[in-house]
Amino acid sequence: MRSLVLIGHGSHLNGESAAAVYRYAEMIRARGLYDEVVEGYWKEEPSLRQVLKTTASTDVTVIPMFISEGYFTETVIPREMGLGHQGPVPPEGVARVLGGRTVRYTLPYGVHPSMSDVILARAHEALPDSSPEDTALIVLGHGTTRNENSNKIVYQNAEVLRQSGQFASVHALFLDEDPKVGTWPEMVKAPRVVVVPFFASEGWHTLETIPEDMGLEGAVTTFTDNPHGQQTVYYAKPVGTHSAVADVILHLAEEAAGASTSDGDTERVHGAAWSAFMDRARQGLRFGEVLVQPESGMFELRHALDEGKPGHELQTLVTPEGVRDFTRRDEGGHHRPVHTLRNMPRGWRAVMGEADLVRAVQYLYPAVIEETYAQSCHTLRPTPWATTARRQTGIYARVQKATPEQLEEVAADVCGGCLRTRLWAGEKLPQTFFDGVPGAIPCAEACTFLVAEVREEVAGKRGGGASHSH
Amino acid sequence: MRSLVLIGHGSHLNGESAAAVYRYAEMIRARGLYDEVVEGYWKEEPSLRQVLKTTASTDVTVIPMFISEGYFTETVIPREMGLGHQGPVPPEGVARVLGGRTVRYTLPYGVHPSMSDVILARAHEALPDSSPEDTALIVLGHGTTRNENSNKIVYQNAEVLRQSGQFASVHALFLDEDPKVGTWPEMVKAPRVVVVPFFASEGWHTLETIPEDMGLEGAVTTFTDNPHGQQTVYYAKPVGTHSAVADVILHLAEEAAGASTSDGDTERVHGAAWSAFMDRARQGLRFGEVLVQPESGMFELRHALDEGKPGHELQTLVTPEGVRDFTRRDEGGHHRPVHTLRNMPRGWRAVMGEADLVRAVQYLYPAVIEETYAQSCHTLRPTPWATTARRQTGIYARVQKATPEQLEEVAADVCGGCLRTRLWAGEKLPQTFFDGVPGAIPCAEACTFLVAEVREEVAGKRGGGASHSH
Repeated sequence: MRSLVLIGHGSHLNGESAAAVYRYAEMIRARGLYDEVVEGYWKEEPSLRQVLKTTASTDVTVIPMFISEGYFTETVIPREMGLGHQGPVPPEGVARVLGGRTVRYTLPYGVHPSMSDVILARAHEALPDSSPEDTALIVLGHGTTRNENSNKIVYQNAEVLRQSGQFASVHALFLDEDPKVGTWPEMVKAPRVVVVPFFASEGWHTLETIPEDMGLEGAVTTFTDNPHGQQTVYYAKPVGTHSAVADVILHLAEEAAGASTSDGDTERVHGAAWSAFMDRARQGLRFGEVLVQPESGMFELRHALDEGKPGHELQTLVTPEGVRDFTRRDEGGHHRPVHTLRNMPRGWRAVMGEADLVRAVQYLYPAVIEETYAQSCHTLRPTPWATTARRQTGIYARVQKATPEQLEEVAADVCGGCLRTRLWAGEKLPQTFFDGVPGAIPCAEACTFLVAEVREEVAGKRGGGASHSH
Repeated sequence: MRSLVLIGHGSHLNGESAAAVYRYAEMIRARGLYDEVVEGYWKEEPSLRQVLKTTASTDVTVIPMFISEGYFTETVIPREMGLGHQGPVPPEGVARVLGGRTVRYTLPYGVHPSMSDVILARAHEALPDSSPEDTALIVLGHGTTRNENSNKIVYQNAEVLRQSGQFASVHALFLDEDPKVGTWPEMVKAPRVVVVPFFASEGWHTLETIPEDMGLEGAVTTFTDNPHGQQTVYYAKPVGTHSAVADVILHLAEEAAGASTSDGDTERVHGAAWSAFMDRARQGLRFGEVLVQPESGMFELRHALDEGKPGHELQTLVTPEGVRDFTRRDEGGHHRPVHTLRNMPRGWRAVMGEADLVRAVQYLYPAVIEETYAQSCHTLRPTPWATTARRQTGIYARVQKATPEQLEEVAADVCGGCLRTRLWAGEKLPQTFFDGVPGAIPCAEACTFLVAEVREEVAGKRGGGASHSH
């Protein structure tokens, strides 16, 4: 049995941030090469701290879904996942045995050599009849003075594509460092120019900055009086959203997996947790804000506040992804980065078999079954705030300066609306929903949402306690 | 059967704002002169729009718990309660028959002649051995240029107390109009001076403004070189919090009630709603976020998320007031002006008989039983937003300018966290908790909390949708 874990950045604010990771996970899941494809996030759930617990096998390959190496892939992810590694990741990845699981951590997908194929695919989409006679290619990177490696991969890909001989010329240009993208009319001589942004996703840069810096008016723009004569620019979509990235991910995973001689087993504790959950589910179970009931060989899942509502008045969902997407926002349409906040939307029911129920619950309440089962077995170890704070780096390092009063004030706001009981703050939780108390879910450690709010507080950027101003 | 209704201002932010009304209601309830004493608020629940529905009898006397006549007693309360009256209220009050109830609306307690007794009581508390030989009395009002009547009652009380001959002199001074309180050293000649603030409650004025304007250092302050020689000032507590106000309220109510020849009956619809509720409660009922279960002749009420929790791990409450006070704030300690927001705290259970259960539920979910029963009988009439907006005056009149988009954006934030289904916005609610759907509670009309938020939006004072800034 093998588990593949895709790690995304996620967002506390933007509900679409995780969409790309969702999509690749679905594509790879559909190929059936792994027994499960699990997602984890820095700013969503399951968090980097929790995600390993949510994997079902003892053979886990972790892929950082980032376009380049840097702070997240070298510092944040290894630290938060407890990989015992910091700094550049070697080409073969990092392998560790953690709590009974063999965990392999790879380079980010963006630095894999096969990304040149993705660049080429994007170029051909933008200009199917490109030719070495008259077509130049610009590979466009972000570039930064903070990380010397982030431009290297753009240069490498440009070089590979140059040697392929498919373009009249190939250029590596950047938004934030020389050679800057705005210099293209001087640099590029060919009458047709394909521009492929080496970016993870559509966003401010691909939609605003690049078109503005290059003078583009859309997918195709013709410049009549450039220094080298008339030129037409074909603007491709970013590489990071191309479906071929799924192949890159699988390449990375297979190359890292080469280190293992055989598949893993079912992870014992994980199996016990879900087995206990299914035992309860078969008799009908309330946990958190939801209610699961057996229904002629299947299971029905719905918001407990919707109990008794005729099925035809609820939206019926039949896939785990349907449940995920319906409950991704609250009833006011706001993103829910923390799933145990008491704001799960009503108005839906899911009808599914056992395997899909498990995945739906993993989306509804990421890591909750595993952590609550551990709590009921007295094996969940809380991490005190001081430890969490000390571990923070970068812009979050300042949370170490929070006074106990500041922490409590922020926790009152953030955790006051959460189902979880803060073991990390000394609260006790003698029963859980495994014992019939629906709202009893442990919180082993301050989440990144709280950490981010504490940072705002320390920076003096938070308002008063209430979110409303009157 | 007779109902007494006390109307307070309440607050969307300050959880202590309603405390004085709570206290007088409890004192009057304890005397047993009325079959029920009900509270209603402008900015809390039950709202002025709902409070009449929550009264059990057809004979209702409504007392505005305000210190003086003005905008609230003459405009807001009569309008929101649908009394069909605007402007000054005659001494005998206003009587109307509304939906089968005889409703009498009185002057505010502060203008009742017996308030001079309360002033005297406060003066004697501050200086028990006051004497006409050497003691002056200052009755201290707020005063305002906006309402000419607000000073009148201070002058009247001063005159009554002057004629009583118990003080060397009696002065009416004001914070915001002449004669100003700061002129007291010139105006008052007696060596001992009692100051009684004619204010509704302790607050910024009684704790900060008055002491500062008068140069007071505490309950007793001696001034050694005043124009008229040494003077000692005895600073009394505000009249509005004196327990004798309960007598004033009863005077007002009895004088207004004089208009009726006999007691009222049980109000039929109200009785039917609670009878239906009790029928369900006897079989165990989930409604909103709570769960009620029969327990050896009594009832146990608790948060549904605490179902199954051993009783000894919950705080056991045995009075309706205990339930009210425990659930007045959310788990983060924030005031809950809207009780159907999905933030009722957990950690408690109430064990009580039928009569107390009814009152506890009235505190937990004000007007919810009555409105939900009406909805289940198809008699709840929604008030569209346009009607609510048009009715607003004063600082809220501008909500009429809100665009449909602004309204929806604010409603997404405010109503997105509320159990209620917005009938006033066209949403449908075919079942209710009377039909076994715990979370199904109707919202017949935009609440003042939403109106206030819409006003902020129109004024450009609201932030983005999310309450957190990252």
